[in-house]
Amino acid sequence: MSHLRQNIITRDWVIVASDRGHRPNDFSSEPRPRPQVNPYEATCPFCPGNESLAAAELARLPRHGPWRVRVLRNKYPALVPEGDRVRRSEGIYRTMTGVGRHEVIVEHPRHDLMTATLPLADLEMVITAYRDRYREAHQDPRIESVILFKNHGRRAGTSLLHPHSQLAATPVVPNQVRIRVEEAIRYFDDTGECVFCRTLREELKDRERIVTETDHFVGFIPYAALSPYHSWIFPRRHMSSFDAISDREIRDLARNLRQVLAKMYHGLNNPDYNYSIRSMPTRSGPTDYFHWYLTIIPRVTRTAGFELGSGMFINSASPEASAEFLRGVQVPETDSTEG
Amino acid sequence: MSHLRQNIITRDWVIVASDRGHRPNDFSSEPRPRPQVNPYEATCPFCPGNESLAAAELARLPRHGPWRVRVLRNKYPALVPEGDRVRRSEGIYRTMTGVGRHEVIVEHPRHDLMTATLPLADLEMVITAYRDRYREAHQDPRIESVILFKNHGRRAGTSLLHPHSQLAATPVVPNQVRIRVEEAIRYFDDTGECVFCRTLREELKDRERIVTETDHFVGFIPYAALSPYHSWIFPRRHMSSFDAISDREIRDLARNLRQVLAKMYHGLNNPDYNYSIRSMPTRSGPTDYFHWYLTIIPRVTRTAGFELGSGMFINSASPEASAEFLRGVQVPETDSTEG
Repeated sequence: MSHLRQNIITRDWVIVASDRGHRPNDFSSEPRPRPQVNPYEATCPFCPGNESLAAAELARLPRHGPWRVRVLRNKYPALVPEGDRVRRSEGIYRTMTGVGRHEVIVEHPRHDLMTATLPLADLEMVITAYRDRYREAHQDPRIESVILFKNHGRRAGTSLLHPHSQLAATPVVPNQVRIRVEEAIRYFDDTGECVFCRTLREELKDRERIVTETDHFVGFIPYAALSPYHSWIFPRRHMSSFDAISDREIRDLARNLRQVLAKMYHGLNNPDYNYSIRSMPTRSGPTDYFHWYLTIIPRVTRTAGFELGSGMFINSASPEASAEFLRGVQVPETDSTEG
Repeated sequence: MSHLRQNIITRDWVIVASDRGHRPNDFSSEPRPRPQVNPYEATCPFCPGNESLAAAELARLPRHGPWRVRVLRNKYPALVPEGDRVRRSEGIYRTMTGVGRHEVIVEHPRHDLMTATLPLADLEMVITAYRDRYREAHQDPRIESVILFKNHGRRAGTSLLHPHSQLAATPVVPNQVRIRVEEAIRYFDDTGECVFCRTLREELKDRERIVTETDHFVGFIPYAALSPYHSWIFPRRHMSSFDAISDREIRDLARNLRQVLAKMYHGLNNPDYNYSIRSMPTRSGPTDYFHWYLTIIPRVTRTAGFELGSGMFINSASPEASAEFLRGVQVPETDSTEG
């Protein structure tokens, strides 16, 4: 018999139906030898030398010498930094101008690398660029929320192979974010504690769902994970906003994230996935109740009418079995020495 | 420049980025001649004669003679009707037994038909079965919410070709449903009116987003549609719960739904899609503030990290242009005479 679990942070219920006869590696992608990918592609707008194919450059790291990480405007932006934030309300119709930011972070000059196999120092530089761009967006008074995210693979919404991630900064607080902030406030009012800190403490006590522990971060499968291998990485230190991350924490997040991604890459056959960083709305200062985190969703199952009709999910993998499986995945030596 | 729109019913913001150079039919599926499908398949559990391959039958229509619509237990149920609803709360962990229902509605004896091309009398019988099963589930005091839904095609979460839909009845109110009910109450408190009735009235006045109008139902593209061709069908009469639908309204809903699906089938090359019926939680009686409706989501684009990280959507089609396009799609004569 299945059972339901409620996520105390989001209040979402999930049906855990792990008795459908699946084993942990039933969710790995079909083994598909990666087609030969070249380190350079003449038509790729993100490869060095093809800069004219891409939109304007916003930043690069390191600041001098050849770039390792490059930040561009998105060529097909959903939001643009030019213009005023104008909101109109006419009867039931509410609208606002599409001001904000939509940027691409090119993670490495080489076309054939993936985030899961980036040298550690390079992933550290990518996360440093995340923080720099977040800070830049944070200062814009028209912006209410900043989302950093990555799409890896076609099922995750991208067909571009060159490793890259994105930043979107919106002129409103997304409703889902607003609801979660309200829940976090309510939990803090009831208990005097941050619900994220509490969750982390309990998970570290239970240990059943832990995947990766490093000095400053903990990767784990949430108790009410929405889908197989849905993972969270929480900073141990209470911080509301992602851009409060220190240099030392950036280095450690690179280690932790790379471990989780490499375990998925090797254990689940390079699955398509998305990750995103969920942070406090930017117009608030630091708070006692909200805590940023990173969420990773391998696209190994599909959402269907039940999920779309109810907002509830059916997870056919046990979170405990998924965590145990990932803990057991050995990342080959060559990968770790790269870092 | 893009703009944002807020859905007054869900409070969700969507970015309408229709200036990315798309035209309405850019979202149609690749033309793919449907492979030859036989009216009967020996291995299909839903074909007449193969009843032993499927789980137990729960109902059939008509009640006498050969079946036209058949309701089965789901062979891999997410929720089962046996057992007690037991809820436990231990610290931050909240869990409940997986009691409820998970049923399959086989829409027609023929393997090769699709909902979009079902004879009208048959679709009417399918919706009658929806109402019967909804009523049956409604009477179970352990059940809080009933979701009727359909998955058509692999991208929508099914690989079974035989036309079928599903019912899931959950022992909790999904959080998303709870939030929408609270919004509807707040709107009613502020204005004395049902927000769905109000929306319908405005859409009928504007007419820009209307797709299909029949005696009792209106099909339209929501002002803040989440994705291209995301459509709603609202009953004109205020009803909180789907099972309040009358026989006459069932006949009319069949007509309306079939028109929308046939327009998508012909205009967008048989796209994969989901639809679901969103209704009032079952433990409430009829209310002045909540109004059931049907929502259809063609799977013509993919959600990616931005959507997963924020809950906001980017719609690269203009709702007005999408509605205009669908209004213009002619459903061939053969289809309409079938009904």
